Amino acid sequence: MTDWYRLGENQHVIASGERAFHYGDGLFETIAIRGGEPRLWEHHVDRLLAGCKCLGLDIPRAPVIRRRLDVALGESDHNTEFCTAKIVVTAGPSQRGYGRAMPTQAAMYVGVYPGIPLNKQAYEKGVAAIFCATRLATGSPVAGLKTLNRIEQVLARSECLATGAFEGLTRDADDRLICGTMSNVFIVKNNAIRTPSLERCGVAGTMRRHVIETLGGAGHDVGVADLYEDDLVDADEVFISNSQIGVVPVHRCGGYKWVIGNTTKEVMALLAKNGVDECRV
Amino acid sequence: MTDWYRLGENQHVIASGERAFHYGDGLFETIAIRGGEPRLWEHHVDRLLAGCKCLGLDIPRAPVIRRRLDVALGESDHNTEFCTAKIVVTAGPSQRGYGRAMPTQAAMYVGVYPGIPLNKQAYEKGVAAIFCATRLATGSPVAGLKTLNRIEQVLARSECLATGAFEGLTRDADDRLICGTMSNVFIVKNNAIRTPSLERCGVAGTMRRHVIETLGGAGHDVGVADLYEDDLVDADEVFISNSQIGVVPVHRCGGYKWVIGNTTKEVMALLAKNGVDECRV
Repeated sequence: MTDWYRLGENQHVIASGERAFHYGDGLFETIAIRGGEPRLWEHHVDRLLAGCKCLGLDIPRAPVIRRRLDVALGESDHNTEFCTAKIVVTAGPSQRGYGRAMPTQAAMYVGVYPGIPLNKQAYEKGVAAIFCATRLATGSPVAGLKTLNRIEQVLARSECLATGAFEGLTRDADDRLICGTMSNVFIVKNNAIRTPSLERCGVAGTMRRHVIETLGGAGHDVGVADLYEDDLVDADEVFISNSQIGVVPVHRCGGYKWVIGNTTKEVMALLAKNGVDECRV
Repeated sequence: MTDWYRLGENQHVIASGERAFHYGDGLFETIAIRGGEPRLWEHHVDRLLAGCKCLGLDIPRAPVIRRRLDVALGESDHNTEFCTAKIVVTAGPSQRGYGRAMPTQAAMYVGVYPGIPLNKQAYEKGVAAIFCATRLATGSPVAGLKTLNRIEQVLARSECLATGAFEGLTRDADDRLICGTMSNVFIVKNNAIRTPSLERCGVAGTMRRHVIETLGGAGHDVGVADLYEDDLVDADEVFISNSQIGVVPVHRCGGYKWVIGNTTKEVMALLAKNGVDECRV
């Protein structure tokens, strides 16, 4: 892992043999920068390194990644008190063909983007979601990881944008509820909180992990299970999580509606005390 | 669809916001150029346009694609009597996020690469394959299409390269036989030819289509069906197809062995008469 590049507008830093372009051969992290610091940094690094291991890429050293992020933040014109950083690790350029050159010389790209705060009303009154018609293929060898193979999310997100809904919930090919196009989903029933298993597909979000760990630390274990549309319909409350926005209640999805209940409010209050200021309502 | 770029060594033509890089948001075709002409051109165009439709990309006009390919071939330093062209159609650059800018301004990239003929012995004596441990996720919304989301093939191909086998056969998460990492597979049993259904995952190769159509034209219908490892083991003959190499017999996969039988030889003879010179042994 020697090379790194800065992502930015009007830049053409990507080599035409870059395997991320040809095959999506790489991984990424989208990190909330808050008060100048990357939030949930360890979670992002953990997932990135797990992804590198799964894909057989050089595993970069965490302090090296951090140094490059800090350089990119230092040089950015954006407000780095509140912005978004993106780190992409790829298999780098190679000759044509699925096989990588051996040894693989991984490449890293870092971009800094303006932060776009979500309006307070979303946290207070919840957001609307839809059920996406696009299904996620199941039994993926990269389930849970944030690889650069994201066509399913692109297609699902297009459905969402077409309706004006804030988020689209996706199911897998076997009807299991998996996650949102850009978030993870939690359901509350009789004060018990559950979230879909991501063993077969989907992305295991860093904020999902933070929610599970924060709640676990407060004595509320989150159940990770195979969930279906029926479980969602039957829920008392529904909320979603995402690294940039924290946790937001969902007040409806398609024809189904939920209240913004006490459990969701408690989750948000706990997160607000544990590094996710946005959840303070 | 206005912009197009040339892929080549040491070029940095790819914008840092290119959605192919970030999400694999696009499609590609790898075309055998034989006698200066793109072989199976209509099949390649058909699949590319079907992919654009599925992904919701601008559908380029076939003559425009052809003109760009011809320009790239005309300017190439490689032997364009026998070489490989690659056409990539992407959603182009956009802001960060899965949602595309609307309307989406698709981009096209064309590259010309040296042709690498397969040795005659492979056609005469067959090639060795392995079963890949990497499984393909099933129930993909882009099953059959040649999208830029190819991490599964990259992982499966790595297994292959590690063993020195010519090809790796992949199964889906439900144990169905699907295809090779870079080819489609056909099995022969009692002179009947079958090939796996690609309704759930896998890439529907242009040479696969050409084989099915050529055989159909000669009165040999190919059965497209759900096939499993048992069907492969039980087969009398096995062969694979790929746009660059045509059809090649498989003499073994893991511990299983097959003869190079009369049906495979007849398929190769029919293809040799129908535009695939490589199959003339």
